[in-house]
Amino acid sequence: MTYTVALLAEAVGGILVGDGSRPVVRVATPAAAGPQDLIYIDSARHLAELRASGAGSAVVPRDVLPPPGMSGIQVDRPASAIARILELLVPSARAFHQVSPQAVVDAGAVVAPDAGVGPFVYIGPGARIGRRTEVHPGSTIGRGVTIGDDCIIYSGVHIYPETVIGDRVVLHSGVVLGADGFGFVQEPAPGGAPGVCHRKVPHVGRVVIEDDVEIGANTAIDRAMLEDTRIGAGTKIDDLVMIGHNCQIGRHCIVVGQAGISGSSTVGDEATIAGQAGLADHVRIGRRATVGAQAGVTKNVADEGVVLGSPAMPVRNARRALPLIERLPEIRKQLAAHEGRLERLERAPNLER
Amino acid sequence: MTYTVALLAEAVGGILVGDGSRPVVRVATPAAAGPQDLIYIDSARHLAELRASGAGSAVVPRDVLPPPGMSGIQVDRPASAIARILELLVPSARAFHQVSPQAVVDAGAVVAPDAGVGPFVYIGPGARIGRRTEVHPGSTIGRGVTIGDDCIIYSGVHIYPETVIGDRVVLHSGVVLGADGFGFVQEPAPGGAPGVCHRKVPHVGRVVIEDDVEIGANTAIDRAMLEDTRIGAGTKIDDLVMIGHNCQIGRHCIVVGQAGISGSSTVGDEATIAGQAGLADHVRIGRRATVGAQAGVTKNVADEGVVLGSPAMPVRNARRALPLIERLPEIRKQLAAHEGRLERLERAPNLER
Amino acid sequence: MTYTVALLAEAVGGILVGDGSRPVVRVATPAAAGPQDLIYIDSARHLAELRASGAGSAVVPRDVLPPPGMSGIQVDRPASAIARILELLVPSARAFHQVSPQAVVDAGAVVAPDAGVGPFVYIGPGARIGRRTEVHPGSTIGRGVTIGDDCIIYSGVHIYPETVIGDRVVLHSGVVLGADGFGFVQEPAPGGAPGVCHRKVPHVGRVVIEDDVEIGANTAIDRAMLEDTRIGAGTKIDDLVMIGHNCQIGRHCIVVGQAGISGSSTVGDEATIAGQAGLADHVRIGRRATVGAQAGVTKNVADEGVVLGSPAMPVRNARRALPLIERLPEIRKQLAAHEGRLERLERAPNLER
Repeated sequence: MTYTVALLAEAVGGILVGDGSRPVVRVATPAAAGPQDLIYIDSARHLAELRASGAGSAVVPRDVLPPPGMSGIQVDRPASAIARILELLVPSARAFHQVSPQAVVDAGAVVAPDAGVGPFVYIGPGARIGRRTEVHPGSTIGRGVTIGDDCIIYSGVHIYPETVIGDRVVLHSGVVLGADGFGFVQEPAPGGAPGVCHRKVPHVGRVVIEDDVEIGANTAIDRAMLEDTRIGAGTKIDDLVMIGHNCQIGRHCIVVGQAGISGSSTVGDEATIAGQAGLADHVRIGRRATVGAQAGVTKNVADEGVVLGSPAMPVRNARRALPLIERLPEIRKQLAAHEGRLERLERAPNLER
Repeated sequence: MTYTVALLAEAVGGILVGDGSRPVVRVATPAAAGPQDLIYIDSARHLAELRASGAGSAVVPRDVLPPPGMSGIQVDRPASAIARILELLVPSARAFHQVSPQAVVDAGAVVAPDAGVGPFVYIGPGARIGRRTEVHPGSTIGRGVTIGDDCIIYSGVHIYPETVIGDRVVLHSGVVLGADGFGFVQEPAPGGAPGVCHRKVPHVGRVVIEDDVEIGANTAIDRAMLEDTRIGAGTKIDDLVMIGHNCQIGRHCIVVGQAGISGSSTVGDEATIAGQAGLADHVRIGRRATVGAQAGVTKNVADEGVVLGSPAMPVRNARRALPLIERLPEIRKQLAAHEGRLERLERAPNLER
Repeated sequence: MTYTVALLAEAVGGILVGDGSRPVVRVATPAAAGPQDLIYIDSARHLAELRASGAGSAVVPRDVLPPPGMSGIQVDRPASAIARILELLVPSARAFHQVSPQAVVDAGAVVAPDAGVGPFVYIGPGARIGRRTEVHPGSTIGRGVTIGDDCIIYSGVHIYPETVIGDRVVLHSGVVLGADGFGFVQEPAPGGAPGVCHRKVPHVGRVVIEDDVEIGANTAIDRAMLEDTRIGAGTKIDDLVMIGHNCQIGRHCIVVGQAGISGSSTVGDEATIAGQAGLADHVRIGRRATVGAQAGVTKNVADEGVVLGSPAMPVRNARRALPLIERLPEIRKQLAAHEGRLERLERAPNLER
């Protein structure tokens, strides 16, 4: 189907400015765009890029007019509109529509008739794959795993037994769900030998991924010791994140790349954990709280709290304090100078003490 | 088999308190437990949870009595006892008992008759798989790899040629052992072009994993350049850890999630490297030393040493120093105030200098 | 073929010192080497190891003479020479020479006749695999992916559709190329419910890996939203690195383990990003710049700039400032002492103010 600016404006509930009959074949960046391309700017700050672009059309904020000759779609939230337009222009094609003869599906597994299972996928006994869900090549779905409808399990995803996955979940390649939590009890070495050893604590809990969660490449989420490690509905997790056993992550959270959440921590709804941040175990992050990039959190963070730094501190403190680390040599120098001046003053012969 | 409190008390060498005939079907958390569930508390500090629980039985420390109506098992180390009880209640079931017809085992490989090899496993020439070891679907065992007895290689594990793995080793999904170390020599760009290029140093060493090691999901351990990267017996490694070429990790160490150990570093026996910590290359961490979470270690750490911070410092210093970062604005303000007061004093007209 | 010291000296353009007829069977470390082994030292600082070694031969810098009885090869860059010698002594053997009958290659894919494709590899429609390229077991090559000549794709690599890979590229196990970038638009919860949700922004861009790139185990590089995430020719990336959508990494860069580069950042040619460093989004790192280990970069870094610390600062400042964090308690104490001394001075009865 060929879209015109007018059709797209209608689809996103925007106001058409200029020629609505212009065709749109793709979304492009301002620098790369040509007459059949649509661009977008988020705010009037990017007006120069808009004007310099060779694009035929643009999605713009309500207060921006496209330059002469460019068609425009004015909307409240350009980024949302572009997400919708991309969905229309580049409809996601299903790659697998049936069970590949090169897959191994246990006789005791139930795969919905309209699910797609690629080659080299193993589906264990008792597993259930929901309607229209796709499992790409080389993934492993363990015994008793439940996967809901309309999920995409990309290639090379490994899901341990008993994991529960809701509807519309997206798991990118290399995701591992349900590996044993890192739980060991330190014991004396056996047989009276000196030293210690670490005895494994069997992990009999599960991982539960609620609806509409997306999890990035090579992220690992460990099963709980007794109950569930849970990722709340709508939460989005980036690549290479680690979430330890027993964690409870709320709904509609954002967890950015390489963040690490230690065991038994809880994260409130709509919270953000930025990249490479680390949470100690048993920490509680409040609703809508934000943990900044590379922060190290060892104490609870209140609802709406924003922390930064390692150890983490309130962001308003961090923004003033962290840049001063660079000034420490100067601080020391000034201190030394004060020391000398104080000594001179204290030695002043006519100063009565 | 159904266990009673009395049977479990005997199995862990504990003292039975109350009704020993009560059946135990699972271990649960205090809040979730019912009459057929066993809970545990680690110390008398959790007495309130114990008393509020609906559990039928509890493992408790020697100095704790379960509330009336709850059966108890008093032990020295409740966590160890629970590990043992979980082993009894939830015996780990083998998933694969033979070589799947969908596996490819090279004619020159030797797989023990009672080993289990799942579908889509590739086992290269000269590889050896020990007795009762399981290799789950989609794993790759390279040429000449040796795996001992009673190991579990979960799905999607990739083991490069010549790696040596002992007995009772557990490798979780996504583990990569033996990829080339990150060794390059910077050279002038070829052909007299400006700039540099990086020439690969072939890595002909191995990875050696000793007995009883467990390695978490998506952890990568690189092969040595010439000899062995070695993980000592009994060491437990969490998810998403990186261990570089030539490292020597001692016995019974703990390496927590997302820690990174650069090339040619050594870690002494029973040391702990906490989450997201980073070790520079050629660093030596002493026996029973501890590197705190997110620490950045560029110098050796003595036996039993405990360091924290980036750059790392002794923990007793770090605990006092790191929280003061937040006070830097105040320190600067006080310094500025002192400056003014000193100037006023120095300007005092009757002060003889 | 058996090499002698003389042959190797010639191969690396070095000066032979002593007996050139001595056979060399392997490269070893000084401590482990015997009469048929070759060792190397980088500089005269390692003379003691050279002298104590039982090696038959050694590669040494121009200004070093091997001890009596040891043959020597004097070169300008010993590490480069050893890389070349290892290539000669341990020629890399191809593991897969043809398409395995256990691979699934879509009828619309083109695999060069001398490429090797292992078991359990899936190659999607329209994909192209170049000459002499090897794809090891369990890897997935998505629809429309192009891979050049002489590449090694190790086992368990997952490449999303439309990714472009040049010649002589090495991808280690667990690498994921082309997963969707972490792009979401925050929107009000649907249906007037309280709170927010995150709408996925479809990612229609690609990942482009230029010639001679090597990427370490379990590293993830995300596709661009609209155009290309690009890794420049000759760049070497270590294990467990994350590179976000739209990033432009230059040529001949070094990115060390567990580093994270957020979306839309650019890294200039020949730059180095050290281990566990983190770059914020939209940051620009200059040519030949260096970002130190664990650094947190939120601002651009100039060409040749060297930064360290979190937040990052120029390295000359960081080397003086970061060690002073440990002195903060002492600084506070001295400040408090100054406070007292100032008060005493200010109270001096005969001081006129």
